[in-house]
Amino acid sequence: MAFPKIKIGMVGLGTVGSGVWKILHRHQALLSQRAGAKLEISKVIVRSKKKKRPVRLPAKVLNSNIQTVLDDPEIKLIVEVMGDVRASRQLALKAFRAGKHLVTANKALLALHGKELFQEAKKNRVDICFEAAVGGGIPILRALREGFVGNRIDSLYGILNGTCNYILTEMSERKTSFPETLKQAQKLGYAEADPRFDVGGIDAAHKLAILVSIAHGVFVDFPKIFVEGIQGITPFDLECADRFGFEIKLLAITKKNGDKIQARVHPTMISKDSMLAAVKGVNNAVFLEGDFVGEGMLYGRGAGSEPTASAVVGDIVEVARNILAKVAYTVPPLGTHAAHIGNAAIEPIGEWRGPYYLRFQAIDRPGVLAQIAKILSEFGISISAVHQQVREEGREVPIVVLTHDAQEKSVVKAIAKINRLKNIRRATTLIRIEEFCQ
Amino acid sequence: MAFPKIKIGMVGLGTVGSGVWKILHRHQALLSQRAGAKLEISKVIVRSKKKKRPVRLPAKVLNSNIQTVLDDPEIKLIVEVMGDVRASRQLALKAFRAGKHLVTANKALLALHGKELFQEAKKNRVDICFEAAVGGGIPILRALREGFVGNRIDSLYGILNGTCNYILTEMSERKTSFPETLKQAQKLGYAEADPRFDVGGIDAAHKLAILVSIAHGVFVDFPKIFVEGIQGITPFDLECADRFGFEIKLLAITKKNGDKIQARVHPTMISKDSMLAAVKGVNNAVFLEGDFVGEGMLYGRGAGSEPTASAVVGDIVEVARNILAKVAYTVPPLGTHAAHIGNAAIEPIGEWRGPYYLRFQAIDRPGVLAQIAKILSEFGISISAVHQQVREEGREVPIVVLTHDAQEKSVVKAIAKINRLKNIRRATTLIRIEEFCQ
Repeated sequence: MAFPKIKIGMVGLGTVGSGVWKILHRHQALLSQRAGAKLEISKVIVRSKKKKRPVRLPAKVLNSNIQTVLDDPEIKLIVEVMGDVRASRQLALKAFRAGKHLVTANKALLALHGKELFQEAKKNRVDICFEAAVGGGIPILRALREGFVGNRIDSLYGILNGTCNYILTEMSERKTSFPETLKQAQKLGYAEADPRFDVGGIDAAHKLAILVSIAHGVFVDFPKIFVEGIQGITPFDLECADRFGFEIKLLAITKKNGDKIQARVHPTMISKDSMLAAVKGVNNAVFLEGDFVGEGMLYGRGAGSEPTASAVVGDIVEVARNILAKVAYTVPPLGTHAAHIGNAAIEPIGEWRGPYYLRFQAIDRPGVLAQIAKILSEFGISISAVHQQVREEGREVPIVVLTHDAQEKSVVKAIAKINRLKNIRRATTLIRIEEFCQ
Repeated sequence: MAFPKIKIGMVGLGTVGSGVWKILHRHQALLSQRAGAKLEISKVIVRSKKKKRPVRLPAKVLNSNIQTVLDDPEIKLIVEVMGDVRASRQLALKAFRAGKHLVTANKALLALHGKELFQEAKKNRVDICFEAAVGGGIPILRALREGFVGNRIDSLYGILNGTCNYILTEMSERKTSFPETLKQAQKLGYAEADPRFDVGGIDAAHKLAILVSIAHGVFVDFPKIFVEGIQGITPFDLECADRFGFEIKLLAITKKNGDKIQARVHPTMISKDSMLAAVKGVNNAVFLEGDFVGEGMLYGRGAGSEPTASAVVGDIVEVARNILAKVAYTVPPLGTHAAHIGNAAIEPIGEWRGPYYLRFQAIDRPGVLAQIAKILSEFGISISAVHQQVREEGREVPIVVLTHDAQEKSVVKAIAKINRLKNIRRATTLIRIEEFCQ
């Protein structure tokens, strides 16, 4: 049986683009049998045609003028894997207006300009697919839009940045410091030369913005997402966590609390017995609770050329199947039809209530703990456990306090007051504890 | 905005059916906004209209004549949740011929009659959806057909029966015997009055048949799947597993080995560090390795009214979205287009090679271990570890041997010869060990 041919234009040929090219070539027959069409990348846009790349492409496929894919009437589908936000937005808008479907792996693009892009795609009745933007090879967006569609998503916890999870796993297992472990991660290619985007939590927040939109059917104003990175975590914190039965993970969290939606990224202590605690190294996972399905988790490689390309190819096949059926947009990109998507009322982090791990760096003198405890109690914060191993009169030592449920804004005020004490030498470290049912 | 209405006929109102009714009612508005249509169950077929049920339905909805849903021209979609294989097959074929789409949770139906049903559905251009048949609320079938579509699935390991996983978890944690734990599971409603279907591995094998078909794009001759249940596992085996760094799980496994496909269900020892080992109690999970995506896992509730109903509702929404777009069959039900689905060449279990855990029940006399070791070596089986804790001259004691990779048919022959030794009092227990990369 001869398959109809679907021509694809790909913009970008870096890590992800090379992976996409590789999959479409290695699995050409398999993909035809699954998609019902022969998938052919007929044009690839690159900045320089001479650069060395991990894949070899016929010269006639390469082109450095982005307009050529937009102008090619045979190309029905554009795959955007260049990364840059400004250029991607322009490309996406032009593609939609030219009636072409778009597959993108660009999480920042969607987190910052999603609303505009979804509207434009809908107006032109074309598909916009972006599974690769969240969790690499993990098909979590599809799961939320389709498999879990019968549920209100009460809570969702994601390990969405492999760099952070690798660093925290290594620091915990090898007792190495953050800067040392980061250097190691960079050497292994698990962290960028400029790591702030990853370790600062921004990358995870971009992905969370997309998840919040699909989970709750809302648009998210990105700056309203609370973001805290892992730079302040020490091997001592990980050791204490271990002693209290916890692991520390950078979690991207969203919960529904009446009309309010929580959306926050920060280092979090979770029980060692939880499924998320078993997620080590560069792996990603999303754990969720739906009101009917109960708890669920999807786990896998969150980044890298081939896992991300696998997700892009999943989207290419979806668009191809739709092109063959002469439909688009059967599943709305955010899972909810556009007319019913409102703006998210994001709850300020100050409203959060839960238990905390607090590490005070204090000069070891009699009465310091009493001072700390007194201030905490002034703000209505009650202590569930205290840990102070080292005793060295007159030297700086860490004092660890675990609290019962307390409100963030009270905790922040209490800490500000404590940080002003004469015997406190550095800013206090605060780590939120999540006790999700399991 | 007024939504178009899609009328549904549901056949069966037991555990799953009640859950479906509940979701469609509690989430009527949410589902309309997500599906783009108002979903209404206009007829429910039950055997007795007077039976007490967990949900209250208007009397006019209930009907005991199955033909009424088939004859109702307004009903475009039939949800089959009655369970019985014969009746379901008849219903499915009649539904397809009447041009109606079908959603079913019936794994036995698909494992035994899938080929016939898929052909008939295709002929009539209607959808057949069955996400709830495998892994309850876990959207694994969709993930294989869509998200992972760019991969050759090299291996897949499923914990697909909550009853077995509950029993093994309890036996391991509480050191209780199989019969005692089974009784407890029955009391809690985690096991049926006739538990053979679950603990014997048949239920998991039905689900595996479906997974094999989608993962590899093949039809499976169900009797060719090797099935072994958990009835022979003792607390002693679990204790030994623990000592060697393993957990015992009932796994449904499929691997691609050139043109041959492995498809087998049996108790399996896996490393405690693996993600599957973290799956406790009644939960299910599917772990897989794709050639591009690498490792992935989906985890969640594998059974129960609401998780299973959540999966059924996911399928209902899929069909509804297709009805609105006036398409069907855009994603083939087995992920591969029918013309390219062949029959699976299932590798006989005798061809399997791997390490084994062997427990011999021997009379403790000098030389017994030597006899066992000699026979194993005759068959080319080499020992990696031996464990014999109790020494009680003249009494029956367990002798545990771990082997290096060995071939199943040699192991079976060696065991048969060993079982004939004068000092061996019972059939030897054999548990396969899977060392999947992680």
